[in-house]
Amino acid sequence: MGPHPAVAAIRLAVRRVLHDLLTEHHRAPAAVPHAPAHSSPREHPPSSRLRSSREVSPPPPLVLVACSGGADSMALASALAFESPKLGIRAGGVTVDHGLQPGSDARAAEVVQRLRELGLDPVDSVAVTVGRTGGPEAAARDARYAALDTAAERHGAAAVLLGHTRDDQAETVLLGLARGSGIRSLSGMAAVSGAGGRYRRPFLELDRQTARKACMVQSLPVWDDPHNADPAYTRSRLRHEGLPALEKALGKGVVEALARTARLSRDDADALDSWARQAEASVRDAAGLLECAKLYALPPAVRRRVLRRAAIEAGAPAGSLFARHIEEIDRLITGWRGQGAINLPGKVVARRQGGRLVIRQG
Amino acid sequence: MGPHPAVAAIRLAVRRVLHDLLTEHHRAPAAVPHAPAHSSPREHPPSSRLRSSREVSPPPPLVLVACSGGADSMALASALAFESPKLGIRAGGVTVDHGLQPGSDARAAEVVQRLRELGLDPVDSVAVTVGRTGGPEAAARDARYAALDTAAERHGAAAVLLGHTRDDQAETVLLGLARGSGIRSLSGMAAVSGAGGRYRRPFLELDRQTARKACMVQSLPVWDDPHNADPAYTRSRLRHEGLPALEKALGKGVVEALARTARLSRDDADALDSWARQAEASVRDAAGLLECAKLYALPPAVRRRVLRRAAIEAGAPAGSLFARHIEEIDRLITGWRGQGAINLPGKVVARRQGGRLVIRQG
Repeated sequence: MGPHPAVAAIRLAVRRVLHDLLTEHHRAPAAVPHAPAHSSPREHPPSSRLRSSREVSPPPPLVLVACSGGADSMALASALAFESPKLGIRAGGVTVDHGLQPGSDARAAEVVQRLRELGLDPVDSVAVTVGRTGGPEAAARDARYAALDTAAERHGAAAVLLGHTRDDQAETVLLGLARGSGIRSLSGMAAVSGAGGRYRRPFLELDRQTARKACMVQSLPVWDDPHNADPAYTRSRLRHEGLPALEKALGKGVVEALARTARLSRDDADALDSWARQAEASVRDAAGLLECAKLYALPPAVRRRVLRRAAIEAGAPAGSLFARHIEEIDRLITGWRGQGAINLPGKVVARRQGGRLVIRQG
Repeated sequence: MGPHPAVAAIRLAVRRVLHDLLTEHHRAPAAVPHAPAHSSPREHPPSSRLRSSREVSPPPPLVLVACSGGADSMALASALAFESPKLGIRAGGVTVDHGLQPGSDARAAEVVQRLRELGLDPVDSVAVTVGRTGGPEAAARDARYAALDTAAERHGAAAVLLGHTRDDQAETVLLGLARGSGIRSLSGMAAVSGAGGRYRRPFLELDRQTARKACMVQSLPVWDDPHNADPAYTRSRLRHEGLPALEKALGKGVVEALARTARLSRDDADALDSWARQAEASVRDAAGLLECAKLYALPPAVRRRVLRRAAIEAGAPAGSLFARHIEEIDRLITGWRGQGAINLPGKVVARRQGGRLVIRQG
């Protein structure tokens, strides 16, 4: 008798990602751990710290799972623990204590205990201080990824697995849609992201219900983060009210359609970015200034990307540069009637002078 | 004292579109009315039926408004009636009787009467028979546009104005999102569409509330189509439940963000389509077959568009060709492991043979 279908599904998803990692691992030289002094000998066997040359077979790679103790990441941890030994991969875990709720340290210790019971080793608990930049959700995310990056580097991990599901992806697409800043913001989370493709999301095509079911049938205790149900958080409102209402209006396929939109939008945005990179060189004059006539001849989608790149290059912070800013610069090209300089975030100014577009700070 | 802000807003929106039309009109030769025998002399002064050569100044253009009697299109009709004489434009109207509700013929006659009271001339009521193809909403839309096309051609109209608002646009984007078939389906309705750019949507950046307000302050009676509130219709569910829930979760800016997404997606989709058109020629061999190695080298977003074009060219109906079909063809290129032929809608078959992709019917 095989495993329950939900368990089979989570294992298959993890197996695929581990296969990809092994393929990449055998192509590339071994990852070199950074700052090895930070890892305790017990959690990190000295052998793997040896710098292996290309001639020597690399040591078995280490894959970490980022685990909050919630159903998605516990299911992921269980699948990683099951699949990794069969592929000669070492499996460890990290849990991040955000310190945002009373008793979060005890929670983190409990998660560490559960991951160890699954056979993961090393297992780290990392306490972080969450700032305020960009709102509570963004600040918590920034602190979390910084901690995961540090943990991955300390252990020389080949990858960190994240438990984001197709439902999370659908929510992310809707959050991007609410920004209305174009298809890049619709492209959600990537299956592979971070420096050197460190972060992997094996469950991006799996629904949340399957992860939850897999925990249940494996008798894995899971923790429901009260933040996930707190209507003070946009994502929580989306999850508990917005998406269900949308499903009621549009049908049950909405989550899948949103996830597919993310994949397609990502590829589209990548292609247009590469076009804009190529176009950028061709629209500059000998002095490196952007020629308005040449910009005008580009398709609007490409021109706007060239303008955005130029504004960022001049010092405008990407996160503060909205579609309306780019549209205003674009009107210097497409609706020129002698308008004055345009002020952009980061004290960047765009103006048209003698058929050239000048974008610079101050 | 100027007009109420809502009235000023609808007039400005119409004035902009009429200006565009005049500019185009004076560039191009006059539109030649088709099938003039169908129009009654009273509704269509004979002078405008004269075929004017490029040497003779064209007669004043005729602009029709498509009017259901609802708030959006009544506001549009009132603004057209107000603005057109100032620009030397003749203004008429068409209402379509879909015959879907008892008394729809009397309704249509009432709308004709109201449009005449606004000073529009000619005003037509066109009865249509709604089929079943593609579901009730699509069938009604097809019948409506066919009737509007016929009316426009009969009168030699330069344009037909449609009352779609930013709210309609937001709903259309969400409907496209639910299909999950990529950014073209997110691009909503175009401001200019149809053969020769016949259809214009002056209110695409105006909210529904403004149109409703403009009718109220002008004491224009409006008709609320019961279909718009009928939960049997997807769009109605979206309007009354889906979108409000999304606004509650994501904030009031959602409608604007969706409309902006539509504009940006349209430009992006246009640019990628033009890239695919160019790429298509470069990936064919001397015999006109698609070379897999060259397809492989294209960005995925461009390759998938080339494949979609090839499938449609081979006879697959565009409306039945989904993202999953294209993904399956794509795997013949990116994940080749000797898989067999792929069956597509319209009895089209795609297979890989000797490094070439063969897509043909039967």
